[in-house]
Amino acid sequence: MNAISNVSPDAAARLPYPYLLFLGDTTEPGFAKTAFGVRDWAGDKCVGEFAVGATVTTGLPVMTPAEARAAGARAVLIGVANRGGIIGPTWIAPLLEALEAGLDIVSGMHVRLGEVPELAAAAQKHGRCLIDVRVPPAGLPVGTGRKRTGKRLLTVGTDCALGKKYTALSLAAAFAERGLDVDFRATGQTGIMIAGGGIPMDAVVSDFEAGAAEVLSPDAAADHWDVIEGQGSLFHPAYAAVSLGLLHGSQPDVIVVCHQPGRAEVLGAPGYAVPSIEETIALNLRLGGRTNPAIRCAGVSLNTAGLDADAAERLFAEESARLGLPVADPIRRGAAFAALVDNCLK
Amino acid sequence: MNAISNVSPDAAARLPYPYLLFLGDTTEPGFAKTAFGVRDWAGDKCVGEFAVGATVTTGLPVMTPAEARAAGARAVLIGVANRGGIIGPTWIAPLLEALEAGLDIVSGMHVRLGEVPELAAAAQKHGRCLIDVRVPPAGLPVGTGRKRTGKRLLTVGTDCALGKKYTALSLAAAFAERGLDVDFRATGQTGIMIAGGGIPMDAVVSDFEAGAAEVLSPDAAADHWDVIEGQGSLFHPAYAAVSLGLLHGSQPDVIVVCHQPGRAEVLGAPGYAVPSIEETIALNLRLGGRTNPAIRCAGVSLNTAGLDADAAERLFAEESARLGLPVADPIRRGAAFAALVDNCLK
Repeated sequence: MNAISNVSPDAAARLPYPYLLFLGDTTEPGFAKTAFGVRDWAGDKCVGEFAVGATVTTGLPVMTPAEARAAGARAVLIGVANRGGIIGPTWIAPLLEALEAGLDIVSGMHVRLGEVPELAAAAQKHGRCLIDVRVPPAGLPVGTGRKRTGKRLLTVGTDCALGKKYTALSLAAAFAERGLDVDFRATGQTGIMIAGGGIPMDAVVSDFEAGAAEVLSPDAAADHWDVIEGQGSLFHPAYAAVSLGLLHGSQPDVIVVCHQPGRAEVLGAPGYAVPSIEETIALNLRLGGRTNPAIRCAGVSLNTAGLDADAAERLFAEESARLGLPVADPIRRGAAFAALVDNCLK
Repeated sequence: MNAISNVSPDAAARLPYPYLLFLGDTTEPGFAKTAFGVRDWAGDKCVGEFAVGATVTTGLPVMTPAEARAAGARAVLIGVANRGGIIGPTWIAPLLEALEAGLDIVSGMHVRLGEVPELAAAAQKHGRCLIDVRVPPAGLPVGTGRKRTGKRLLTVGTDCALGKKYTALSLAAAFAERGLDVDFRATGQTGIMIAGGGIPMDAVVSDFEAGAAEVLSPDAAADHWDVIEGQGSLFHPAYAAVSLGLLHGSQPDVIVVCHQPGRAEVLGAPGYAVPSIEETIALNLRLGGRTNPAIRCAGVSLNTAGLDADAAERLFAEESARLGLPVADPIRRGAAFAALVDNCLK
C-alpha cells in the first residue's frame, strides 16, 4: 500500500484525478453533497459515477471501475457520507473492484481508508494509493506572522455551514473570468477534492493552525489572488480557534462575510445567537488586522436559497443600503454579484 | 510495553508519582526548567534526582533509580530539555536502568518515548509504562458552549512565556491557603507534571480545542474554583488559536492578565509589538464574553524578575493606579498579591 496521508497545498494537481464518483448505497441526496460539489465545481475532473444500490445520481455517465479506468480515471472518489462517517460492509466489494481496476481511492470520511483491513490489503497487493484528505500534511510549521507577497481574500461567516466554500469558489471563478491570476485555496474536505489540494484546517493541531494557513497561501506574484475558503466562525463556541488561526495565517487583504438570513441560532450550540453582520465584520477586521493592518471588508454573501428571485433582490438592495457594502448571493449571478466582485478587486 | 498516551484531566493523580527527577547531562540551568518547576510546585511528589554528568541540580537527594524505587518512587521524570527536544544517546543507559529498577518514565519531550527502540523494548520486557504528557487524551469532543457549574479563573497574557503558569499556580495556592476548594488545571507539559494530570492544549487538534478546555474544567460545586493555566496570547500570530479555544472552552468568570514589563516584541514574531495591558484586557473580555457574559478582569500579574523589590513595589502602585485594578508579582507575596487574590474572589 502507498498510504498518502497528506496533500500538498502548493500543488494544485496532487490528487489523482480524473475521478470516478462513488455514490455507495445512498438514497438521501443530502448525504451526497460531496459528489454534487465535485461535479459542480470540478466537473472537468470527473469521468462518471458508480454505485451499489444508490438512488441519488450526479447525472454523470454510469461506469464500472474498469470502464472508468479505460476512460482515463485515476481514482475513485467517495462522494457520499453516511451517519457515522464509516465505510460500511456494502461498500467494500465495489471499492475492492476499483483498486483491482487500477484506481486509487480518495476519501474524506472520518475513518481512514488504511484502517479497513480489506482495503489496506488490496491496495498493497495492487500497488494503489489510499488517500485520506482529512489528514493534514506532516511537518507543518508554527506561524511566523511574516507578511507574504500577493493578494488574499478570505470568506468568513456569521456561523458555520452557510456558504463560505461556495462563495470562495464563486469569487475565484469570477476573478478568473476577468482574466486575473487566481487560486482557490481549500481548507475542508470537499474543497480539497475540488481543488485537488489544500489543507483540512479543522484537523490541524492547534499550535500549527496559523502556520498551516501560512503554508496554504504562500508568497505569490504581486497581482496574484488566493481566494481562501473560510471555516467556522469567530463566534462559534466550538470552532472559533479554527477560524482565528485561519484568519491570522491567511493575512487577508479582503474579507467577504457570509450569512444565512433567518438563521437565529448557532449550529450545534443551543442558546447561542448568530451575531449580526456588523459585529462579524468588526471582529474579523479587528482580529485580522493583527497580521494585516490593511484588511478590509468588501461585501456580504447571503445564502438566499429560501427566497424567490424578487425577494432576494429586494434583500440585497436593503442590506446593501443598510451596510454600505455590496450584498449578493453567489448562486444568483447578476448585477449584485458583479458589484461584490468589483469591490473585492477595488 | 504499556504505552499510556493520554492523561485524564479529571484524575489529579493519574501520573505515577512520586518522581525521581532526571537531569541528563545538562549544564545549562535554563534547560532544567521542568525539573525546577516540578520541585518548586510539587516537591511532595519528588524523592530525589539523578543524572549522567549534569552540573545543574535541584538540591534534592541524589539517588540511583534502585534507591529511588526503594524510597517509594514510581517513575523517573525527564526534567530537562535540550536543543531539538530529543532523547540523546547518553540518556538511554540511565533510562534503561530506571525501567529495570521498576520505574515508569514520564516525558514532556517532543519525541515520543515509544519511538526510541531501546526504551520501547525495555518497557515491554519489564512491564513498565512510557508516558508522554504532550499527547492529548483520545476521544476529545467538540465544544458545546454549555455553561458549567462552579467558578473558573484563567490566566491570560500579553504574550507567551511570561508567567501564566506560575501565576495560576500561585493563585491556586493562595485560594487553598484561604480554605477554598480549588484545583489547578494544567494546559502545558510542566503544569501537567506538577498537577499529575491535565491536557496539553497546544497539541489538541483545532476542531476540538474548545471542547478540550470544556473537558479540562468539568461541572463542579458552586463554590469550587478551577484555576486554569493560560496558553499563548490572542495577539500572537502563531498561537492565538490555542488561546481563543482555551478562553471559549474555559468560560472563565475571572481573568488575570500576565505581562512582562519591558518586553516590546512578541516572542518568535519579529515586528509584532506586544499589546498594552488595556488592549489585552479588552480583547479577552470581548471574546470570553461569548461563552461567559459575566467574565471580568480581576487584576494584573507582572513578571518583575528584572527589578529590585522597591522598583517592583513602585511599579505595582503606578500600574494599579493607572489601570484601576490590583497589580502584583506572584513571586513577591505581600500586600499587592493579597489585594489581587481579594479581587479574584470578590
